[in-house]
Amino acid sequence: MKKTKAKPNVAILATLDTKGSEVAFLRERLRDAGVNVLVIDGGILGSATSRADVPAGFLARKAGSSLAALRRLGHEGKAMGIMMQGAVKVIRDLYDREKIDGLIGLGGSMGTSLGTSTMRALPFGFPKLMVSTMASRDTRPFVGSKDILMYHSVVDLVGLNRMTRQVLSQAAGAMAGMVRFTHRPRTSFLPPLIAVSTLGTTEACIRHFRADLEKSGWELAVFHTVGSGGQALEELVEEGEPQAVIETSLHELVDHLFKGSYDAGAHRLEGALLKGLPMILIPGNIDFIVTGPPETLPPRYKNRPIHVHNAAICVVRTNAQEMKRLARVVADKLRLATGPTALLLPSKGFSVFDSPGKSFFDLSIDRVFIEAIKKSAPSGIRIKEVPAHINDPRFAEEVVRTFREITWSPFSKVLNKKRGTLAG
Amino acid sequence: MKKTKAKPNVAILATLDTKGSEVAFLRERLRDAGVNVLVIDGGILGSATSRADVPAGFLARKAGSSLAALRRLGHEGKAMGIMMQGAVKVIRDLYDREKIDGLIGLGGSMGTSLGTSTMRALPFGFPKLMVSTMASRDTRPFVGSKDILMYHSVVDLVGLNRMTRQVLSQAAGAMAGMVRFTHRPRTSFLPPLIAVSTLGTTEACIRHFRADLEKSGWELAVFHTVGSGGQALEELVEEGEPQAVIETSLHELVDHLFKGSYDAGAHRLEGALLKGLPMILIPGNIDFIVTGPPETLPPRYKNRPIHVHNAAICVVRTNAQEMKRLARVVADKLRLATGPTALLLPSKGFSVFDSPGKSFFDLSIDRVFIEAIKKSAPSGIRIKEVPAHINDPRFAEEVVRTFREITWSPFSKVLNKKRGTLAG
Repeated sequence: MKKTKAKPNVAILATLDTKGSEVAFLRERLRDAGVNVLVIDGGILGSATSRADVPAGFLARKAGSSLAALRRLGHEGKAMGIMMQGAVKVIRDLYDREKIDGLIGLGGSMGTSLGTSTMRALPFGFPKLMVSTMASRDTRPFVGSKDILMYHSVVDLVGLNRMTRQVLSQAAGAMAGMVRFTHRPRTSFLPPLIAVSTLGTTEACIRHFRADLEKSGWELAVFHTVGSGGQALEELVEEGEPQAVIETSLHELVDHLFKGSYDAGAHRLEGALLKGLPMILIPGNIDFIVTGPPETLPPRYKNRPIHVHNAAICVVRTNAQEMKRLARVVADKLRLATGPTALLLPSKGFSVFDSPGKSFFDLSIDRVFIEAIKKSAPSGIRIKEVPAHINDPRFAEEVVRTFREITWSPFSKVLNKKRGTLAG
Repeated sequence: MKKTKAKPNVAILATLDTKGSEVAFLRERLRDAGVNVLVIDGGILGSATSRADVPAGFLARKAGSSLAALRRLGHEGKAMGIMMQGAVKVIRDLYDREKIDGLIGLGGSMGTSLGTSTMRALPFGFPKLMVSTMASRDTRPFVGSKDILMYHSVVDLVGLNRMTRQVLSQAAGAMAGMVRFTHRPRTSFLPPLIAVSTLGTTEACIRHFRADLEKSGWELAVFHTVGSGGQALEELVEEGEPQAVIETSLHELVDHLFKGSYDAGAHRLEGALLKGLPMILIPGNIDFIVTGPPETLPPRYKNRPIHVHNAAICVVRTNAQEMKRLARVVADKLRLATGPTALLLPSKGFSVFDSPGKSFFDLSIDRVFIEAIKKSAPSGIRIKEVPAHINDPRFAEEVVRTFREITWSPFSKVLNKKRGTLAG
């Protein structure tokens, strides 16, 4: 819980051996914008060219090393990797002790790695701004599943000129403006949250059940299962935010198994099951594997139905054998469940692509998944087969009904704690 | 020139058929943060679900169409493309009439295309913030060479919940903070600006000449020639910002000719030559072509010296034949010159890779470029061969000497206008 402070504190993390004058300028602009500033030096090669409040040596020691040892490595990348560990520890510690309200970084490739690796260690909602020469390209290694603002500096951040001054001034303004909105309204009532997964191909399903659940007093947060979306959902569960989960899109499991593009890692789904959150699993979007551009399609997929989504993405119909393997994986995950869990099986199609008239429509393949999971799911999981397409309003009605059953159940952990908040 | 306003104006551009409640919330948060708000609707499919100040039909008409006609197209992508043209016209007009001080967009893939295509039509320094589900991936189609802040929303922007409220509140704060720093100090003296191109491999050259030129009263802005950097330099020249250009990195021309990764288009270098800016051309970094990961190396390069920069980038030594073609291209561009232009040729190596002991070091290939360009460069261009490596301090001394010659020349347009500002 944050106390009300007269002045918020913003940390600058940068390499002061190469960016001393830029950091000094940013510090002044942040002060002009009404915040206190703490400068943290992550530079390893040379000595700081402007004043740091937390010197580089302190970060190196936090990582169990020293600046001298890092320099002796003779490898900037490796040295920087160790330095980042120290930076994460220092920043996490400042965050935990409520000493900082925002984090701003600036730099090129090294500085952006340093800054964003630290930002990714901070929770959603904490203001994070990276001024970077690396913001107009693939930013996933930097941003990952986090709410980081990437500010493309256009010019290189070496030396002060009208352009770097402009960028740094605006960055200071943006950060100062953000920290005023940091404090979450912990004092007022927050409705219980359902984390919901989807893709465009199952979005209609959510549209059909959203209003009913909101009327019952729940709040919904929607995650797109493009890999980073599933990871963000898992992280939110880890941070203890949602009280329930409805998964309408499981194709990240397919992509993990068969090396598709939207892979969210081996532990997808597991967090909520282990925590015992009420959870509905719907096998949406498992009718496809996401792959890259058509010309990079692996030969093993050449004879499958293919849907070209755009120049960068095409999707391939899953086959019966893959459905069997997936059912085994889902059943194994279900064995981890410690809370009320339901599996809802729409027997008339798993996504927009898998609907009558569309090229992936093949109920016989879908049936393989349904039969296999029915057979192998552990007891204690509610399983309902619904004779409807996943995007059919009738299916969504069943989602709402089941959700009420499992959250009103005396076995529901969330209800034991939060019964008063459930007005539905 | 901006007038001082009591309250800055921020435009929101979004599709109000799908993002009505989110835009209404953002509008309130921006107002709380002390700015006036103008909501512009770019939605084409449904009707707006909250109030717009500039309705979608107005944008469609500005593009020479109508909402009805766009809907009749039956193709969301094409309709959106036309809508974007209208949005660009409306926003540019508001900008030109000084009615807006910042632009904020929110959305998924469609909304991000709409928002950022409009932002890319606004000059450097104008605050641009895109709240997007598409910010953790390849952002180059969205950001390009512009100073756009990309804010990864983590959750999908459908419906208000604690997460979307948090993101939109912070976005409002960031934008409100930025617009306070919009106004450039036009009233106070700004030193003349030199746009300088480089890459890490010729950075030492700049380091050696920077201080001398700054002491003479110039300001330097440095652009990394990774494609977007060269484009940003060209755009800045187009906007009339720099008074002179020093190019120490020409490999974008090589990459354009031979389909390398860091291509900045066919017209690189030409803007400053056509405008008659004093310009120094140095053939830095033409000893290599930038290509992708080693495993994607085209077969024609297999027998060349190769330097693996990292897992995503490797560089290939240019050969004599390529040097000849490049010299022809540079000579053709030089024929466009209308101002004082100098070509400085370091005869002991063109980059860090092309220095003694390094794998690309081959002065006989470099000689091919030097001889060819000497032969084919038009008269009126000063050509100096300097018996030094490009990163040698002696070479940088020659850069400074030449720069002073061409900027003090009575033929220099910049001097005719700005002699008083040149204290060197």
